[in-house]
Amino acid sequence: MSHASAGPLSSDEAAGIHILADLIGASRLDDPEHVEKVLRECVTAAGASLLYVYVHHFDRGEGVTGVAVLAESHISIHSWPEYRFAAIDIFMCGSAQPDKALPVLDAGFRPTEMVTRRFERGKGGLQGEIFESLDLLK
Amino acid sequence: MSHASAGPLSSDEAAGIHILADLIGASRLDDPEHVEKVLRECVTAAGASLLYVYVHHFDRGEGVTGVAVLAESHISIHSWPEYRFAAIDIFMCGSAQPDKALPVLDAGFRPTEMVTRRFERGKGGLQGEIFESLDLLK
Repeated sequence: MSHASAGPLSSDEAAGIHILADLIGASRLDDPEHVEKVLRECVTAAGASLLYVYVHHFDRGEGVTGVAVLAESHISIHSWPEYRFAAIDIFMCGSAQPDKALPVLDAGFRPTEMVTRRFERGKGGLQGEIFESLDLLK
Repeated sequence: MSHASAGPLSSDEAAGIHILADLIGASRLDDPEHVEKVLRECVTAAGASLLYVYVHHFDRGEGVTGVAVLAESHISIHSWPEYRFAAIDIFMCGSAQPDKALPVLDAGFRPTEMVTRRFERGKGGLQGEIFESLDLLK
């Protein structure tokens, strides 16, 4: 894709790592300034390069949508504060370390549970293995 | 999250549908205007509402990153034209129909293969079942 995708995309190499994270019992999901701050902290923690950040607050007390576009792909968050639920995805290629964003999400939104799934995208032209971590950070 | 998330998030209801699509052997992945056009067509086909679209072209002949932020969540694309590969994710809540974006991607990028995985996010506070469709559109 960019300078971040070094080397060939061979049968044993992924284009990037994609993590889906569901946050359950989470807090501060209706605060767009806080969501943007946490997104920026995730980018820093992962060692990624921010191209653009966009945050939209649907209405007072309602959910927030935030997307951080990166040289290494993106991070997105969509929140439902009424259910204390947020759906996050973190996709990064190159030398960025998407897993390092997870403790930042944990500290920023204090979920009672975080459920993650992790994929290697483009591995051998197909998606790689899946694994799921329950209560990953507890 | 928004007006698009109507009704309670009960044990049998998902906050949204998240589709990951890997495009293999695809074309026109280094053309940012084309990528933006296809993104906008995906939004229309799915019956979603566009809030913002951001497209970044890393350099001439290199990959494109594009994100469409929606009232119903988002669509993202990250392309590696040098490998004719693109990683796409489509996340939509409410009445939008993310599956209807898949034929648009097929027509726009003409992949030899499209591999998809589909999730229900937030179902019962956990991610729902997964299924994978190989050669979905062939």
